[in-house]
Amino acid sequence: MTQPRRVVIALGGNAMTGPDGSATPGAQREAIAVAAGHVAEVVATGVEVVLTHGNGPQVGNLLVKNELAAHVVPPVPLDWNVAQTQATIGFTLADELDARLAARGLAQRTAALVTRTLVDAGDPGLAAPTKPVGRFLPREDAERLIALGQTWEDRGERGWRRLVASPEPLSVVDWPAIHALASAGFVVVCAGGGGIPVVDDAGGALRGVEAVVDKDLTAALLARDLDADTLVIATDVPNVMVDFGTPRQRPLRAVTAAELRGHAAAGQFARGSMAPKVAAALRFVDHGGARAVITCLEHISDAVTGDDVGTVLRKDPPAPRRATPTP
Amino acid sequence: MTQPRRVVIALGGNAMTGPDGSATPGAQREAIAVAAGHVAEVVATGVEVVLTHGNGPQVGNLLVKNELAAHVVPPVPLDWNVAQTQATIGFTLADELDARLAARGLAQRTAALVTRTLVDAGDPGLAAPTKPVGRFLPREDAERLIALGQTWEDRGERGWRRLVASPEPLSVVDWPAIHALASAGFVVVCAGGGGIPVVDDAGGALRGVEAVVDKDLTAALLARDLDADTLVIATDVPNVMVDFGTPRQRPLRAVTAAELRGHAAAGQFARGSMAPKVAAALRFVDHGGARAVITCLEHISDAVTGDDVGTVLRKDPPAPRRATPTP
Repeated sequence: MTQPRRVVIALGGNAMTGPDGSATPGAQREAIAVAAGHVAEVVATGVEVVLTHGNGPQVGNLLVKNELAAHVVPPVPLDWNVAQTQATIGFTLADELDARLAARGLAQRTAALVTRTLVDAGDPGLAAPTKPVGRFLPREDAERLIALGQTWEDRGERGWRRLVASPEPLSVVDWPAIHALASAGFVVVCAGGGGIPVVDDAGGALRGVEAVVDKDLTAALLARDLDADTLVIATDVPNVMVDFGTPRQRPLRAVTAAELRGHAAAGQFARGSMAPKVAAALRFVDHGGARAVITCLEHISDAVTGDDVGTVLRKDPPAPRRATPTP
Repeated sequence: MTQPRRVVIALGGNAMTGPDGSATPGAQREAIAVAAGHVAEVVATGVEVVLTHGNGPQVGNLLVKNELAAHVVPPVPLDWNVAQTQATIGFTLADELDARLAARGLAQRTAALVTRTLVDAGDPGLAAPTKPVGRFLPREDAERLIALGQTWEDRGERGWRRLVASPEPLSVVDWPAIHALASAGFVVVCAGGGGIPVVDDAGGALRGVEAVVDKDLTAALLARDLDADTLVIATDVPNVMVDFGTPRQRPLRAVTAAELRGHAAAGQFARGSMAPKVAAALRFVDHGGARAVITCLEHISDAVTGDDVGTVLRKDPPAPRRATPTP
């Protein structure tokens, strides 16, 4: 395999929160320290690294703060909450990663960029919230918030949970700045939480909208925009599984786009979990990306340098030319 | 005057909050839109622009949220709050400024960087909080928070107010990334709220500390680190005043460092208001900066291109060489 030039790594929630999903500052820092060790190993291979990350529990916490302090200080919209998590996770990743880069004698340092992702103002996902965020509440509390215009869904015995809009990402607005930083030798942390969703309003200015964008789909766009050759989606399992939980359960290793698409169409992957990761891998390769790998955090370095770990999706080889018929 | 090459502009609180100090998202956006118009005018002169900004009311709001939601979600430390305001103000500035740059047909776009500022772990300012932030509370509430380890001060009839640590900035950790972005043609928004204060801990990693850094002092360091030739400190008055509120009150126009230092030593400038701006201007010029201007937002473009507005501090000319004695 030829040495990749530039890789986009999407870090999953387990790289930013405690094993129990806890998002205290201490638990976040501890998880990020572990992730930083693995990322430094990737940087040491010589590839340019652009990092993006999830932010679900962090946004959930901010929504609660908004709500409980609303009688004293003005709540901020959801896009502002996404921005806030980019900064807290961004600088913590920078602190931890810079230390590990220095310890390895590497010259690179980390830069955390506040990043906007363009979405379509007419995206049906904006009108119909589907993505669950934040804490569970009893029905009476949920109804009070529904009366304020929010969408809440009955999730059974755990209670009600807020649903927010999750439109499709169209492009990463700030990709040129990310490209400039990566080209100048920085490890770039960007597009956290899928990026701050913005729409292009009539007045000509971009404007945040109350939504969250799927971070893996944004990572695929980012990898395309940055002309990365590899996209690594880090999660908590070493491989994508098919027939999960049945006697025929098996890990996917090298797969073609056609195979992976087939499994996805057959409903093999959990909505809101493995499905968007598979969709992101497919989109990247469909848009010309050479290689997408879905694996666990512990394997990201091996995933960048070889084909021995994870679920590896490669661009399909060009269809063989039909031999010119001999006259 | 020769055309300056690179300018650092420190935007004051009035560029991010409503006329009454209100920090609702709407009021912030409106104020930022106005500021963006003035900044675009500066970019149009052809100079590289690096922007920094205050965040007082925004951090105050976040502290209240932390406090009122602490029984449900974990509070985050003050350095995280500073980071959060960098992102919300950063992307809002980017949205508004990009629109104005595009409207003028300028190719530059805005990049907002999460920025850390190094402080000394032994800084006496860390041990003795002096900077008031957040809302006023009645004595009983303040006492409850004092029992939790916070510092609160009796501010008379408005009530008690929290004091936080404000150590001296030593350097802007992320200046190389800011330099890379500015050199690549971006207007860079960075070091908001004076930067996220970090110390170099024994383990080799930088680590945030519960403090806020004066944004004007950080702006002076930033201007030095970036080798900017001009520092503009934008506030709500066109000039620094001396003998303010007396019959002899007068605006300062061109001043020497010696003069300005004299006025500062005589206690002419209000602590926490004009004093740190004057100190920042002096530090920049003392460290080799060519020119620092303190003026109002409306005049920042004229302040960059000429000496006709604001209080203008220039590097003192070199002492004249003594003529070689004729033998």
